[in-house]
Amino acid sequence: MSSYYIGVDLGGTTVKMGLFTDAGELSEKWEIPTRTEENGRFILPDIAHSIEDKKNEKKIEIAGIGMGVPGPVTDDGVVLKCANLGWGVFSAKDEMTSITGIENVKIANDANIAALGEMWKGGGRGFDSIVMVTLGTGVGGGVIIRGRILTGSMGAGGEIGHIKVKHDETESCNCGGKGCLEQYASATGVVRIAKNHLHPGSEKLEDSCLAGTEITAKAVFDGAKAGDTYCKDVVEEFGRMLGFGLANVAQVVDPDAFVIGGGVSRAGEIIIDVTRRYYNDHVMFALQNKEFRLAELGNDAGIYGAVKLVIE
Amino acid sequence: MSSYYIGVDLGGTTVKMGLFTDAGELSEKWEIPTRTEENGRFILPDIAHSIEDKKNEKKIEIAGIGMGVPGPVTDDGVVLKCANLGWGVFSAKDEMTSITGIENVKIANDANIAALGEMWKGGGRGFDSIVMVTLGTGVGGGVIIRGRILTGSMGAGGEIGHIKVKHDETESCNCGGKGCLEQYASATGVVRIAKNHLHPGSEKLEDSCLAGTEITAKAVFDGAKAGDTYCKDVVEEFGRMLGFGLANVAQVVDPDAFVIGGGVSRAGEIIIDVTRRYYNDHVMFALQNKEFRLAELGNDAGIYGAVKLVIE
Repeated sequence: MSSYYIGVDLGGTTVKMGLFTDAGELSEKWEIPTRTEENGRFILPDIAHSIEDKKNEKKIEIAGIGMGVPGPVTDDGVVLKCANLGWGVFSAKDEMTSITGIENVKIANDANIAALGEMWKGGGRGFDSIVMVTLGTGVGGGVIIRGRILTGSMGAGGEIGHIKVKHDETESCNCGGKGCLEQYASATGVVRIAKNHLHPGSEKLEDSCLAGTEITAKAVFDGAKAGDTYCKDVVEEFGRMLGFGLANVAQVVDPDAFVIGGGVSRAGEIIIDVTRRYYNDHVMFALQNKEFRLAELGNDAGIYGAVKLVIE
Repeated sequence: MSSYYIGVDLGGTTVKMGLFTDAGELSEKWEIPTRTEENGRFILPDIAHSIEDKKNEKKIEIAGIGMGVPGPVTDDGVVLKCANLGWGVFSAKDEMTSITGIENVKIANDANIAALGEMWKGGGRGFDSIVMVTLGTGVGGGVIIRGRILTGSMGAGGEIGHIKVKHDETESCNCGGKGCLEQYASATGVVRIAKNHLHPGSEKLEDSCLAGTEITAKAVFDGAKAGDTYCKDVVEEFGRMLGFGLANVAQVVDPDAFVIGGGVSRAGEIIIDVTRRYYNDHVMFALQNKEFRLAELGNDAGIYGAVKLVIE
């Protein structure tokens, strides 16, 4: 009987799960719903049952379970809080071991396991120190140093979305701060720039291809690719802020490469080009010309990264 | 015969050396000149001779040598360049082992070993993840994660002095960039702010206690402590930039504590107070209220950190 490993990416509505061989190949993936009622007390038992079912169905042994959760986690597997699961502070690792009888359990933050997954099998392949930035509704991040997640003292390592990139922002970020990277580089941030971007002398929104349409990040990047001046200006501002932020990240951790993922990154090379250009403008000489790559694993990054925690 | 360890802090004009017991106590310290002629080819042999002399004088065995050098170094002890020593790229570790016959040799960047030293025996005692920022003529930095130096891919980890903290700076930093933390938070940066700081409605330099004197960072902090409005404004700007920069560092590495050292930090608690205030303004909630400490080891931080590399 071969040994297999389980990667779990626990989200607020769905738990994504993957069965991996001991060679790190994804053999099967499936999902179960996340039951958040009663402070999320069914979540870990549900996952354990699903693993047990898979084990019996396949007649295999499970040698380890890696899991990503949507909140801060210590290196010991203690969840510090997951508001949207209803969880407070407890050792998710110990509970998972206790329910399943499996000792090799590791837990990490979901943005961090996505970074680990992309380093292992995605856009960051071939590097062992990467910074991943996920441009979705918000901006998430993960920092991997020599193959290990930089977790941080309060589980808040790699919270790149709330790096400040502007002093004089007047609108507030979801976090309560002003001038966070997320306010410019997320999907909502790009839309916000597009709606606000009326600096003196620039083309007007009403004269652009966005006029009269629902403004989305995709529409902005499509417009820029098609040569629309207004959209190109918005993309420049997006890249200026993201490049500025990533330059500051590089000054701290000096990674081998940056990997850019999330929905916004589906716009493709235009994202890499504009970000890299402003990054090189802002970073010191020794840190210039880092690799910039697009993420490759999409929604599977989490299960890959989760299993990498336990498969080494 | 007990075992001893040597910590070396190699600077552009002087080599500081310390003899440590295997319990990590500094038993003796001394200095030799740094001979930079002929591309610095005498530097390592001079250090080796000095160690040999100390060994014979004390009739002791040397179990390891740790060394800090003024430039980027890989984790393997390969110096990538030290312009002010005349050094190019070579394995300082291998050469040191070859000259001395001692296998346990480790090399790191000087700002990074100072951070390690302060964590071990100085202002960062009791923590294992710290960010040290050294406010001298320039601004240096070192990041320690779980007791280990964050070296970075090109040896440029912790180069906090060249984090960008302002978009619209018109003057250039020594690195060629514009808006680097070093332009505001170094001794020269504080003087620069004091000379430039004439925003509308603020008191004028000519009406402050700095009028007609040679402006130094010390004079600015002394003036602020004495209640001079102009100096207080300069200190606010210093703290605003340093707090903004360190908030962004925390968003990436989430340390236990910050340790502030270098000549400027001799101004004392006023530095901590203003920096912490702006830090808390800029950082996300989960990262607020980190510890801020003054460095304690002064010029000895380097030899402590260097020896810590080999004494574990």
